[in-house]
Amino acid sequence: MNIESLRHLLEQVRTGSTGIDEALASLRHLPFEDLGFAKVDHHRQLRCGFPEVIYGAGKSSEQVAVIFEKRAAGGGNVLVTRSSPEQYTAVRERFAAAQYHELARCITLQQQAAATSATHIAVVAAGTSDLPVAEEARITAEMMHQRVQTYFDVGVAGVHRLLAHVAQLQQASVVVAVAGMEGALASVVGGLVAVPVIAVPTSVGYGAHFQGLAPLLTMLNSCASNVAVVNIDNGFGAGYLAALINRQKTE
Amino acid sequence: MNIESLRHLLEQVRTGSTGIDEALASLRHLPFEDLGFAKVDHHRQLRCGFPEVIYGAGKSSEQVAVIFEKRAAGGGNVLVTRSSPEQYTAVRERFAAAQYHELARCITLQQQAAATSATHIAVVAAGTSDLPVAEEARITAEMMHQRVQTYFDVGVAGVHRLLAHVAQLQQASVVVAVAGMEGALASVVGGLVAVPVIAVPTSVGYGAHFQGLAPLLTMLNSCASNVAVVNIDNGFGAGYLAALINRQKTE
Amino acid sequence: MNIESLRHLLEQVRTGSTGIDEALASLRHLPFEDLGFAKVDHHRQLRCGFPEVIYGAGKSSEQVAVIFEKRAAGGGNVLVTRSSPEQYTAVRERFAAAQYHELARCITLQQQAAATSATHIAVVAAGTSDLPVAEEARITAEMMHQRVQTYFDVGVAGVHRLLAHVAQLQQASVVVAVAGMEGALASVVGGLVAVPVIAVPTSVGYGAHFQGLAPLLTMLNSCASNVAVVNIDNGFGAGYLAALINRQKTE
Amino acid sequence: MNIESLRHLLEQVRTGSTGIDEALASLRHLPFEDLGFAKVDHHRQLRCGFPEVIYGAGKSSEQVAVIFEKRAAGGGNVLVTRSSPEQYTAVRERFAAAQYHELARCITLQQQAAATSATHIAVVAAGTSDLPVAEEARITAEMMHQRVQTYFDVGVAGVHRLLAHVAQLQQASVVVAVAGMEGALASVVGGLVAVPVIAVPTSVGYGAHFQGLAPLLTMLNSCASNVAVVNIDNGFGAGYLAALINRQKTE
Amino acid sequence: MNIESLRHLLEQVRTGSTGIDEALASLRHLPFEDLGFAKVDHHRQLRCGFPEVIYGAGKSSEQVAVIFEKRAAGGGNVLVTRSSPEQYTAVRERFAAAQYHELARCITLQQQAAATSATHIAVVAAGTSDLPVAEEARITAEMMHQRVQTYFDVGVAGVHRLLAHVAQLQQASVVVAVAGMEGALASVVGGLVAVPVIAVPTSVGYGAHFQGLAPLLTMLNSCASNVAVVNIDNGFGAGYLAALINRQKTE
Amino acid sequence: MNIESLRHLLEQVRTGSTGIDEALASLRHLPFEDLGFAKVDHHRQLRCGFPEVIYGAGKSSEQVAVIFEKRAAGGGNVLVTRSSPEQYTAVRERFAAAQYHELARCITLQQQAAATSATHIAVVAAGTSDLPVAEEARITAEMMHQRVQTYFDVGVAGVHRLLAHVAQLQQASVVVAVAGMEGALASVVGGLVAVPVIAVPTSVGYGAHFQGLAPLLTMLNSCASNVAVVNIDNGFGAGYLAALINRQKTE
Amino acid sequence: MNIESLRHLLEQVRTGSTGIDEALASLRHLPFEDLGFAKVDHHRQLRCGFPEVIYGAGKSSEQVAVIFEKRAAGGGNVLVTRSSPEQYTAVRERFAAAQYHELARCITLQQQAAATSATHIAVVAAGTSDLPVAEEARITAEMMHQRVQTYFDVGVAGVHRLLAHVAQLQQASVVVAVAGMEGALASVVGGLVAVPVIAVPTSVGYGAHFQGLAPLLTMLNSCASNVAVVNIDNGFGAGYLAALINRQKTE
Amino acid sequence: MNIESLRHLLEQVRTGSTGIDEALASLRHLPFEDLGFAKVDHHRQLRCGFPEVIYGAGKSSEQVAVIFEKRAAGGGNVLVTRSSPEQYTAVRERFAAAQYHELARCITLQQQAAATSATHIAVVAAGTSDLPVAEEARITAEMMHQRVQTYFDVGVAGVHRLLAHVAQLQQASVVVAVAGMEGALASVVGGLVAVPVIAVPTSVGYGAHFQGLAPLLTMLNSCASNVAVVNIDNGFGAGYLAALINRQKTE
Repeated sequence: MNIESLRHLLEQVRTGSTGIDEALASLRHLPFEDLGFAKVDHHRQLRCGFPEVIYGAGKSSEQVAVIFEKRAAGGGNVLVTRSSPEQYTAVRERFAAAQYHELARCITLQQQAAATSATHIAVVAAGTSDLPVAEEARITAEMMHQRVQTYFDVGVAGVHRLLAHVAQLQQASVVVAVAGMEGALASVVGGLVAVPVIAVPTSVGYGAHFQGLAPLLTMLNSCASNVAVVNIDNGFGAGYLAALINRQKTE
Repeated sequence: MNIESLRHLLEQVRTGSTGIDEALASLRHLPFEDLGFAKVDHHRQLRCGFPEVIYGAGKSSEQVAVIFEKRAAGGGNVLVTRSSPEQYTAVRERFAAAQYHELARCITLQQQAAATSATHIAVVAAGTSDLPVAEEARITAEMMHQRVQTYFDVGVAGVHRLLAHVAQLQQASVVVAVAGMEGALASVVGGLVAVPVIAVPTSVGYGAHFQGLAPLLTMLNSCASNVAVVNIDNGFGAGYLAALINRQKTE
Repeated sequence: MNIESLRHLLEQVRTGSTGIDEALASLRHLPFEDLGFAKVDHHRQLRCGFPEVIYGAGKSSEQVAVIFEKRAAGGGNVLVTRSSPEQYTAVRERFAAAQYHELARCITLQQQAAATSATHIAVVAAGTSDLPVAEEARITAEMMHQRVQTYFDVGVAGVHRLLAHVAQLQQASVVVAVAGMEGALASVVGGLVAVPVIAVPTSVGYGAHFQGLAPLLTMLNSCASNVAVVNIDNGFGAGYLAALINRQKTE
Repeated sequence: MNIESLRHLLEQVRTGSTGIDEALASLRHLPFEDLGFAKVDHHRQLRCGFPEVIYGAGKSSEQVAVIFEKRAAGGGNVLVTRSSPEQYTAVRERFAAAQYHELARCITLQQQAAATSATHIAVVAAGTSDLPVAEEARITAEMMHQRVQTYFDVGVAGVHRLLAHVAQLQQASVVVAVAGMEGALASVVGGLVAVPVIAVPTSVGYGAHFQGLAPLLTMLNSCASNVAVVNIDNGFGAGYLAALINRQKTE
Repeated sequence: MNIESLRHLLEQVRTGSTGIDEALASLRHLPFEDLGFAKVDHHRQLRCGFPEVIYGAGKSSEQVAVIFEKRAAGGGNVLVTRSSPEQYTAVRERFAAAQYHELARCITLQQQAAATSATHIAVVAAGTSDLPVAEEARITAEMMHQRVQTYFDVGVAGVHRLLAHVAQLQQASVVVAVAGMEGALASVVGGLVAVPVIAVPTSVGYGAHFQGLAPLLTMLNSCASNVAVVNIDNGFGAGYLAALINRQKTE
Repeated sequence: MNIESLRHLLEQVRTGSTGIDEALASLRHLPFEDLGFAKVDHHRQLRCGFPEVIYGAGKSSEQVAVIFEKRAAGGGNVLVTRSSPEQYTAVRERFAAAQYHELARCITLQQQAAATSATHIAVVAAGTSDLPVAEEARITAEMMHQRVQTYFDVGVAGVHRLLAHVAQLQQASVVVAVAGMEGALASVVGGLVAVPVIAVPTSVGYGAHFQGLAPLLTMLNSCASNVAVVNIDNGFGAGYLAALINRQKTE
Repeated sequence: MNIESLRHLLEQVRTGSTGIDEALASLRHLPFEDLGFAKVDHHRQLRCGFPEVIYGAGKSSEQVAVIFEKRAAGGGNVLVTRSSPEQYTAVRERFAAAQYHELARCITLQQQAAATSATHIAVVAAGTSDLPVAEEARITAEMMHQRVQTYFDVGVAGVHRLLAHVAQLQQASVVVAVAGMEGALASVVGGLVAVPVIAVPTSVGYGAHFQGLAPLLTMLNSCASNVAVVNIDNGFGAGYLAALINRQKTE
Repeated sequence: MNIESLRHLLEQVRTGSTGIDEALASLRHLPFEDLGFAKVDHHRQLRCGFPEVIYGAGKSSEQVAVIFEKRAAGGGNVLVTRSSPEQYTAVRERFAAAQYHELARCITLQQQAAATSATHIAVVAAGTSDLPVAEEARITAEMMHQRVQTYFDVGVAGVHRLLAHVAQLQQASVVVAVAGMEGALASVVGGLVAVPVIAVPTSVGYGAHFQGLAPLLTMLNSCASNVAVVNIDNGFGAGYLAALINRQKTE
């Protein structure tokens, strides 16, 4: 029940074509449609360029393809994260324009023009093993119509590699910092820029790394004040958040 | 030394008014001043309203007062977090205008006009025990010239309390969600708004709470895509990040 | 806005004393009051004998007394958990009938007749150090009008002590099993009865006990199928749940 | 030996048809049969509809089939949890009426009429990945002759999905809440209903999820008072407990 | 009720001096007394020299004194572990012969002659900070009538100190190895002797020691096959076990 | 070099048949053979029936067979733990008398008569899934010439199963208690007997079991005083220790 | 750009052979080349014999071979750690002189003469399962031109094996101690020598070993003052550090 | 007994002035004195300038003073770590020259001339709260006659502060890096220098810092190859190791 049908109901009450008890029954059964937050979903799909996102892991190729078709019908961009080449094959049979990003394990379908945001997001990654997560962040943000610049292989054990890009980093409106091992990159980057840093610990490491616990704790304890953290390997979440932040500047 | 003074130096070398050895000495002693990131500090203090922040815990009242005086000399706002009433007494002797926020354990000195940002930050807290952390976030953001709206005691065990504020929450440009116990607030809020949510787990709880580990893990695993997390009880960090995000919209 | 005011509004629409746009505005601003779950609160306080519960820890005596007064005004029973003798003194000044339970650290005010439930709850505790938690469970359930039988000091290292009460335990409609140390009591009790067992690990222990982690894990891994677990030292929660279960049988 | 055979034995002693030494021997060898808890087993199989449960994991198809046959001979319902299609094939050769529930990985044999309990259990699941655990709970409860209503895909990141079912949830006598990720569902549901909630954390998640630790801690620290927790992925235990609770109302 | 009283009851039934219903009532109320394990308690107190043990921590001086008096009445040795000087003062008022062992925080009352076991127990401790735990083990074993030899300050960072006692250690029938820090002592001792080693990790350490977790894991993973472990700081348990083992040789 | 050869050397020095420098050289190269603890090895192999033990995991079939042959040459019993059927095949080609114990994953070669110890060891296991570990304990002890009685499937969720064996358990000189899930068996058994209990947690369980951490903590925190613990799944260590303890009684 | 080329540039500016804008451009593009730490890289490759190290895990054979070729072009030694036989095959096609070390999983190419350092490194390993890590340490150090002596299978459960080598160990300038299980080796070795000990915990163990956590904590808590620790299984890091230390003595 | 006295004994045997049995007795009682490692202690005190170290924590002032006196008698430097002002007062009564270092909580007595090592150690600390640990490292190294340079407040959130000292850091022979919070300093320093870095995590932090666990894991996972780690807050150990390394260069 939306605002229009509610108005219609009230008009029927006024004209007497609907009795009060009948109207009361209708209203009691509108648990949430009338609430403001329903706008969120609307906003999400039609106006704002939020992509339709499908989490591919644990789904069959057939399942992914079917869901993909349904989502694509809305006309927006479609993104499948943690997907396999087999899932891509199934999707491509239906959508020849769909692309597969091998490193990031993402399938994308670009149905809307790539909006060029005024400001941009910087995605920084420590080592080459962190690239799949960094790429997932980049692709997510781009599917949300935001511009992204990437700076890869700039880990802190050779801090001059990162310093070479300081001026460029300072032009971004938000930075995504992706790092496994000890995850120190987020703190160093945080100290170099004056904008929010979304830190993503990765599971790249061994031994006392405990599958990402080490960089996760590092990033949560960052001595830089402008660092917030998402889950281990959650490149999607970081890209999503960065896009939300960058978009505000643009709107 | 910036690009202009570097050009000036080179011209002096060309005209001979500065000898080569003298120029070399100048250049050798610029290990980092020439780098772009030095602007960060400049930017921080003069133009952007970043407060001068002092971490009070573990410092003597005398130490806090001395540092406070030094920082206040710059003319910006000054903020002491995790401070004691004794530290406040020492500060007030020097600065009669300094204020103490008992719940948030903060000392503030407002030396700049409270800028009214066009957009605002929403700070949401689950229970009354979470207020010290939420207040620390609010005060931090306000000292950075951002407007803040607070919504307290809206924990998810009575979700209608939160839903009563949905329309208001959706008008904020960023939400800070503060919660102890199980920390579920961040996920529910995340699903209700279309902007970034900075989640702060608190140490409020007992037993299997493990001093904040429970809500920390909850927030890191949020099923909402727009949630990033800061350290347990880190109200300052959340307020700082929210201010950075909200400011972008304003600038 | 409740069902009555909604009916009133509709009637005004019918008679024309309220315009449709005006009515729409009123209805748009009822984010949740009309929803069914609002009944929960109503149900809680008036019909069902749920006590008004105040968590005493971290509150001043004055704060507890003030909240107590407000809650007592509803006419139901009032319960303060994790309270101090000082808080009790402050409450007693206002309510002479209030009682303090030293072991359980609870303040109670019984304003409703102690209903005698047909069935009863068994509260079983392993050692004398677990009594505070067990007593908190008992008092909570009794404040919710349920009968309770207690069996204390029946730890499994002398299993004959527990077996002496098997026939009695089997007459309860639900069992609360409270244990620190290794927490094995829950499994043994679970195997002896055919009703739900609510297990409460306590922080009684040292070393590899890790403040209750050991019995918590024990109870979560119980080889008995009828065991569910609440937080470490959460006697209140166990008593509350047991009361809900026992009440069903009675209703 | 029950009370009747004990009376019979004593009468034989009185009449002299049994000698004292012979009677002593009989009594010495009853280490536990005379104890009340032996009734539990009896009760379990004949009167109350407890299913015969076999844990399939780690057993060969042959082993499962043999045990299945033995248990089915009792005439009650038979349930195999965590079973494979291969185990099912082996069972079906002996029992054509046995069914396999692929999602829940359960084999069932319904030998007793499906009793229709007056009240019912609600099983609520956050995401589609949590369905195997939720289905295991449903099937377990149904094999114990209890009615179950399911509400799937109602995770808190879109809390309106859950709110749409509030009125229905409030009619259940007990709720099973199944959730992976951050597991916040249990707290929100707990606040919406006035009956016990059995929470089941699942291992669905990644990174700082630590194979179910995150939702486990969430649920143990729930700010709702009516939530008890079972082991990670333990759908069987939750269904079993819910059936015990619902049955009380019916009996 | 033992076998004799059971025979007596049956005879009364035969002669008619006890009615069948009366006999049935008597038998129904013997839930466990007739079972063999009741002998354990008997054995414990009268024949075997097990001390009466009172855990002092968390008890008032008055409580300890009262319990002490009750236990001492049995005529056996009495031991209070984790006791305070105040508790000792209260005990000494009643029992002038009671002794306080300051380092081990134990109160003892020796009421039985100190039996001299043929074989003996070796108690080995790594550092001087481990002595309280080691002494608790020694006193416990001695109160159980076993001879003990102690070897203190023989930590492995100066392994020659331990090697100086190899020949002596090899004459013990069981070794208690007490160590904090990294707890390596247990493994080295285990490799030097051919008898059981009971290892006790202590909470002596800091940082990554995690209050005894480090030596606990060390001892559980010992590369020596003859090492078993008790809880952190559990000197009592180690002394108790060692006494049980040494006693077997003597009996 | 033993005491005899040392005497011989000294005599040669006295008679001059060995020069001082030559003697010095001999003595310098005896870094440890002269030390008392060398007796351990001697004792181990020839006199006491310690088996030669080979840890099979991670070794090739060829490696196991070669080491086996070398060890068997000493004439004692040989035991391979954690071995595969392939390793057994390789061993059997060389030793037709070698046996494979499928459940326990052990290869044994009995070269010494099975000594019949006067007293015996009880091995108790909670569930059928714990049998591999229990069997490893039994076989290890038997290879060390000790008698073993086993009591399987006596978990505490049906405590009457365990109580049926109390009288028998009380005749053992030491008990090995093997349990996964919550591991409560050790505490209950500990309370029923007056001898040492060696507890073995197993990795049987799921979820909050954390691969054996749950029963490990349970056993370390046992409220029974006579329980010591070995590593998770370490049936070998438990059998070894039990054999050492039982042997003392026999010697 | 070093100080000489900087002087050269300034001279060109003075003479006018380089314009100011051109000079500025050169200087602006030296964000870090002028800093002292750039020497590190230079030092690393040409003068000091640091090997070029490639981490093989997670790279394809083709990737390893290509990177190998590029690095080998510099003329220094090349080392691939955690490499597979397949990667070796790909490398050997290009470099016939490359060697594969199966146990250590390393590929090496020795292009510089094996310098004979005056002093040497001792690498000590507890068990045969620790050899891969120990060998990785040895090979790394040798590729850095340092002499290494190895002492394998000297675990502390048979401490005489280690003591046999004390005199030799005391001649090393630094010791690498590699141990899994409980990791006690590092402490014992630390007490025997007066030089730095680099301890490497390995993942060799099971159960409460937690994949290397046990020896890691052991080594961090060592009661010997001269022990520092690297990550679990990090033989490369230990060898690298030991080479740096040993080289200092030599230079 | 050293090699000379052994030769002497043998000569006495040859000449008959010592009987064989007497010689045997002498030799049997040399369990370890003859072994090389006895030299360690000798070396430690007389020749090498190792300080006599006393761990003050948990000792009474009187105990510290007595031990101090005993150690000082040897003529070397004396160091008390983790000491209190009260302990210092007690020491100063006996040794007027003893000094107290308040920040580092150390008492020192310099009895040997401060040797000036050719090379030096750099001690780097991230924040002012880390100074106590850094100072403990500095004082320890200086008491071992090594020169130390300190660089404090150079945390990575303002990396330019650290870069300002790169050239100086590169002149040290070993670096001690002390950091709490996220501990990223060690990795950045490791990448800037070509010598060993001894990393010390501190307990400075809160929340997900877990008393030093966060920087400990950071440092163990450092992406720089030249970093080894000591226990949390172990400034003494780091200073000790750094002194051992720096001394090698000097000798």
